Amino acid sequence: MELPVLIDTLRTALERDTVHLVRDQLEDVHPADYAAALTEFSIQDQWILLTALPRAEQAEVFGYLPAEEQVRLAIRVSRRKLSPIIRQMSSDERADLFNRLTDEQRDTLLPALAQAEREDLLRLTSYEEGTAGAIMTSDYAILQPELTVREAIEVLRREAPDKETIYSAYVVDKARKLIGVVSLRDLILAPVSMRVDDLMNHDPICASVEMPQEEVAALIAKYDLLALPIVNELEQMVGIVTYDDAMDVAEEEATEDFHKTATIGKLESSVKEAGIGLLYRKRVFWLVVLVFGNIFSGAGIAFYEETISSYLALLFFLPLLIASSGNAGAQSGTLMVRALATGDIKLRDWGYLLGKECLVAGLLGLTMSAAVVGLGFWRGGADIAVVVASTMMLVVLVGSLIGMSLPFLLSRFNLDPATASGPLITSIADVAGVVLYFSIATWYLGL
Amino acid sequence: MELPVLIDTLRTALERDTVHLVRDQLEDVHPADYAAALTEFSIQDQWILLTALPRAEQAEVFGYLPAEEQVRLAIRVSRRKLSPIIRQMSSDERADLFNRLTDEQRDTLLPALAQAEREDLLRLTSYEEGTAGAIMTSDYAILQPELTVREAIEVLRREAPDKETIYSAYVVDKARKLIGVVSLRDLILAPVSMRVDDLMNHDPICASVEMPQEEVAALIAKYDLLALPIVNELEQMVGIVTYDDAMDVAEEEATEDFHKTATIGKLESSVKEAGIGLLYRKRVFWLVVLVFGNIFSGAGIAFYEETISSYLALLFFLPLLIASSGNAGAQSGTLMVRALATGDIKLRDWGYLLGKECLVAGLLGLTMSAAVVGLGFWRGGADIAVVVASTMMLVVLVGSLIGMSLPFLLSRFNLDPATASGPLITSIADVAGVVLYFSIATWYLGL
Repeated sequence: MELPVLIDTLRTALERDTVHLVRDQLEDVHPADYAAALTEFSIQDQWILLTALPRAEQAEVFGYLPAEEQVRLAIRVSRRKLSPIIRQMSSDERADLFNRLTDEQRDTLLPALAQAEREDLLRLTSYEEGTAGAIMTSDYAILQPELTVREAIEVLRREAPDKETIYSAYVVDKARKLIGVVSLRDLILAPVSMRVDDLMNHDPICASVEMPQEEVAALIAKYDLLALPIVNELEQMVGIVTYDDAMDVAEEEATEDFHKTATIGKLESSVKEAGIGLLYRKRVFWLVVLVFGNIFSGAGIAFYEETISSYLALLFFLPLLIASSGNAGAQSGTLMVRALATGDIKLRDWGYLLGKECLVAGLLGLTMSAAVVGLGFWRGGADIAVVVASTMMLVVLVGSLIGMSLPFLLSRFNLDPATASGPLITSIADVAGVVLYFSIATWYLGL
Repeated sequence: MELPVLIDTLRTALERDTVHLVRDQLEDVHPADYAAALTEFSIQDQWILLTALPRAEQAEVFGYLPAEEQVRLAIRVSRRKLSPIIRQMSSDERADLFNRLTDEQRDTLLPALAQAEREDLLRLTSYEEGTAGAIMTSDYAILQPELTVREAIEVLRREAPDKETIYSAYVVDKARKLIGVVSLRDLILAPVSMRVDDLMNHDPICASVEMPQEEVAALIAKYDLLALPIVNELEQMVGIVTYDDAMDVAEEEATEDFHKTATIGKLESSVKEAGIGLLYRKRVFWLVVLVFGNIFSGAGIAFYEETISSYLALLFFLPLLIASSGNAGAQSGTLMVRALATGDIKLRDWGYLLGKECLVAGLLGLTMSAAVVGLGFWRGGADIAVVVASTMMLVVLVGSLIGMSLPFLLSRFNLDPATASGPLITSIADVAGVVLYFSIATWYLGL
């Protein structure tokens, strides 16, 4: 059902007071669409429409609501009414919601949960943001190795309603240590009397609770996993991260890296919803820092004022040369930053890539020189043409090398290389461009 | 097992001629790891190690090999030997491989396939690159609506070995039109005598074969799907795209957008493996185009040569002002490009965002003016300070507005907005910066 149609249907149901019929009518609507439609209504109506759904679906739809709407509902609706939904939510979504509430709001909602749920929630919210622990869910299916396939399927069937997935089941020993993984597909294909122990993979791919979330997402993508088991320092199983959460993390990380390439700070909310003040704060720091970086370019120009005043024609080529240096740098910087982020290249590849970059940049420099030599001749004669062409060759080479080296350098010192493409490289390349240009001009023109 | 250990184990097995034992020893190694280890060996050894595995796993490991290695193996190994692997491969991976072969190589391999496989392959390879059709697989599980749950599970069990997934099964009518979807989880939880028709979702989320692959990936992420059914123009089911392929597409698209922000053309292979010539070709076009864009900046400067020669101190601030314009533009451009790519904002949001950008850019401009006004006073006195501060205010505003408008403009004309951040915006903002700066100076200084 298209979203506008869905919204209309819900609006009509509210007006005609037939909300109780919506449940059957919209049985096949995806919870994500239902949630998207809900955001068009007032908090009161949202609540009426949400509670018209069967209990299990209420939590699912609630989980798809944007974070801010969840918080708004959680604050406005009484604890008694909200607690059934909160209890039905998957443990990772519940933890996310609690992380967004104030201490006071948390204290109001916590008593709504059973003891075990409360402990689970407090444990999940205790992990540092950006780690596997902070995004994992504790609703995973566990099997014992001595079960038969028939028993294992029965266990999964019984537990399915409360689990995030039953397509991957995790086998633990008495100490809760992860000793294997088995898929429902394997269980269904296997003879029913076979033991889980004989069927499972004994060397499951897993990650520690402290692993950064982007590495978790990369592992899931690399091995095409449905879910990645997460273990603590005692190798005990504590949660799973599912592929859909990994997809969200990957998008979030790519967006953050994108923004960093333009020296924008980490934005938690969407650009559309971010306030003026927030956008200002995320952008102002580097803008101001880079201004002071450009003072060096200015100083370079000032230093060569005499050369310039003798050959004002040189100025014509200034933007063109420093921009080319910056553009070539932005290109190689971006290539490196992205390749480092996706794991395509490692720090140790630097030497090999440097050699390759020298060749590529050399060719680019030659092409660019050829492109401008005629212009130089036309604007300022043979001497200027030589100066401009040789400067172009050099600045493209130098700009490219700065662009490719900076990300590695930042990585080496455990800084995020993503900041290194775009404006930062352009600024550094600008200084190099100014100095190279006027040095060559001063020397060649014999000033 | 760690990769170096795995490689050592395989090397030892080759030396001691115990490759046949590897199969049991490495039973729990993930095919992706086995494939990664294989790339360290010669083609001959790769083949020996690959064929030491059980038949079904051979195809899986082969599928995880990098594209170039697959082609190399396909060319080197005789058709008779390779055909069992090719036949076992999943249909989408097989189609990918065939797309990379020459016509001659294809003709050699095609006879190895059965009639139905051949037709399937030719159909899959006929879809345009970058569409749902080109990334889908035809190995999906189909159910008839009149089956009982017990029968449906039996069908899935029987077909599981040949299907990409059995966790989602698709219900089609006699004309092969998609009429529903049911998950294995629902089947396992339902009473065994219930009919599939009563259990399934009658309004499944699906996509057309022509949908661009990035939209397919976005749909899968939005609805947390395991697989998305793909239908043709007659609404007949023709394939599925699974979540793991969607993750690969999302990463590929993000990388492409990243590269475009630095005006780098679409790179099919990894940066590490791309040849010098390829990297040169992907970078040279925009570098040269942008050079000519910068001629306008140069012309701007040349036009105001008189102003400059009277106030050489103005030159000191030139890099700083045009860089700030470009940096502010890169920031707002990148914010818009990424938000458009993730669907966070739509074309119709332009008006609202423009208003917000004016406010943010105004604040940024004020801050930047404040940051440089002292410097202006110190280098050139009160007049220069006024010129520099007011220019800064204006260029940050203008740069930001160019940065935010260009992606919308490109989108509007169906061009990829990703090219619009970084160097392109910087170049346009540079011209605006030069002209604004010297116009203000000429006017205010009364030249």
